[in-house]
Amino acid sequence: MAHRLPRCRWLTDNPVVTPDEVRTTATGPTAGLAPGYAQANLVAVPRDWAYDVLLFAQRNPKPCPVLDVTDVGSPRTALAPNADLRTDLPRYRVWRNGTLVAEPTDALAHWRDDLVAFLIGCSFTFESALSAAGVPLRHVAQGRNVAMYVTDRECRPAGRLHGPLVVSMRPIPPHLVETAVRVSALMPAVHGAPIHTGDPAALGIADLTEPTYGDPTDVEPGDVPVFWACGVTPQAALTASRPPFAITHAPGHMFVTDIPDTTYQLGGRAR
Amino acid sequence: MAHRLPRCRWLTDNPVVTPDEVRTTATGPTAGLAPGYAQANLVAVPRDWAYDVLLFAQRNPKPCPVLDVTDVGSPRTALAPNADLRTDLPRYRVWRNGTLVAEPTDALAHWRDDLVAFLIGCSFTFESALSAAGVPLRHVAQGRNVAMYVTDRECRPAGRLHGPLVVSMRPIPPHLVETAVRVSALMPAVHGAPIHTGDPAALGIADLTEPTYGDPTDVEPGDVPVFWACGVTPQAALTASRPPFAITHAPGHMFVTDIPDTTYQLGGRAR
Repeated sequence: MAHRLPRCRWLTDNPVVTPDEVRTTATGPTAGLAPGYAQANLVAVPRDWAYDVLLFAQRNPKPCPVLDVTDVGSPRTALAPNADLRTDLPRYRVWRNGTLVAEPTDALAHWRDDLVAFLIGCSFTFESALSAAGVPLRHVAQGRNVAMYVTDRECRPAGRLHGPLVVSMRPIPPHLVETAVRVSALMPAVHGAPIHTGDPAALGIADLTEPTYGDPTDVEPGDVPVFWACGVTPQAALTASRPPFAITHAPGHMFVTDIPDTTYQLGGRAR
Repeated sequence: MAHRLPRCRWLTDNPVVTPDEVRTTATGPTAGLAPGYAQANLVAVPRDWAYDVLLFAQRNPKPCPVLDVTDVGSPRTALAPNADLRTDLPRYRVWRNGTLVAEPTDALAHWRDDLVAFLIGCSFTFESALSAAGVPLRHVAQGRNVAMYVTDRECRPAGRLHGPLVVSMRPIPPHLVETAVRVSALMPAVHGAPIHTGDPAALGIADLTEPTYGDPTDVEPGDVPVFWACGVTPQAALTASRPPFAITHAPGHMFVTDIPDTTYQLGGRAR
């Protein structure tokens, strides 16, 4: 089940770049890149499945806060008018009948005129605010993708879509847990407050060193694992629900938008 | 264009009642009833139009924050498991080709097996919090429905749906405007912070004494008009976009849920 990406020292060494530079040049996970700009998960499905996906997102707003929905067949989004969703993510996943069949670096050969793309909030978006508040980001300091886990909690089903909740985990010093909750809670459109703090077993996670997606994060002594709902949840729903076709981002390899993080404070939205 | 409801002295005189009592007995506007429980706008459309409505809501989250979507044909909602959406609102509106054709007190004779109902957050939900923070609610004190206005701002279109933004207005003493903004901003799922404070002309509203929906509110000396995005916006979109059939609530005659207001603070959601 586990899919492990190579560890990426370059994350911490990279100079700060603009959203457009990330979209056109990044080849690995996007945590820590273009700080101050919102990042987004991608899931694109045939028009026939679009209502199921949008309803699944509405019924599961913690893992699936929708930031934008494209018009049928269009690779354009209001979140970055110059971007092309077929080429501007570092890595994609192509799904057929719920099975991962390819992980290309662009989706041009797979895109279809009947696709509707959903851009879903990503917790990388509040990482700048966490960092500014003094909360260390272990995975960024370690040059790794964030650790993500399938849980034993089922999402609320919608039409033909069902599947388990996926979470991201950040180890946080106990005296900063309150700060991490408060800062992330201010941004509900990018997952908001954590859904769980402490015992991984309460979410059915047996071993933190074996994430389902991304890299394991080295935990410092005393750190508490804090779990946020994750925008990879739709990918777990694809596996469980087996729609005929879908394109998503590869976990951690996000679409970087032109929208400032702070737009999403307190339920604010970009157009 | 203006549709005026009778002024309702009973609003302020009524004893506090439970959500279930409001659903089974209320006959007029619901402002001030069942304080502490979230209220919701209703728009039900044929399944063929459901994606357009859900996408319109996603693209216009300030006026159209979706709290729940029913399964096709079902009058049941997770927001009040014992309620029946066909009978438990005080007054309905029935629409054909964008024209209001009936305002019944129940929708049993009009309901169809292909309807999908959307429950959309209502600003009445933060009125308890405003009141608790010392912000006077003029319309409640005056025993009237809240005043609502069609503005000259167009919503972002979605599929076959387009139309103008509708707002509710509350006159607020100037030293309490900051409090009103802060308190309502904490509840983005029920319209959140105001979209405008001050000059009605900036929204294309010529005369505050002539609301498009609801009753005019008497303004006290010094009061500032504060405008919130309103869940009647989908009704203006029905008029503009002319879907073949729809059922909505009558403005101000809301569905009272079993969900405590505070559930919706900071982007929180009921299941």
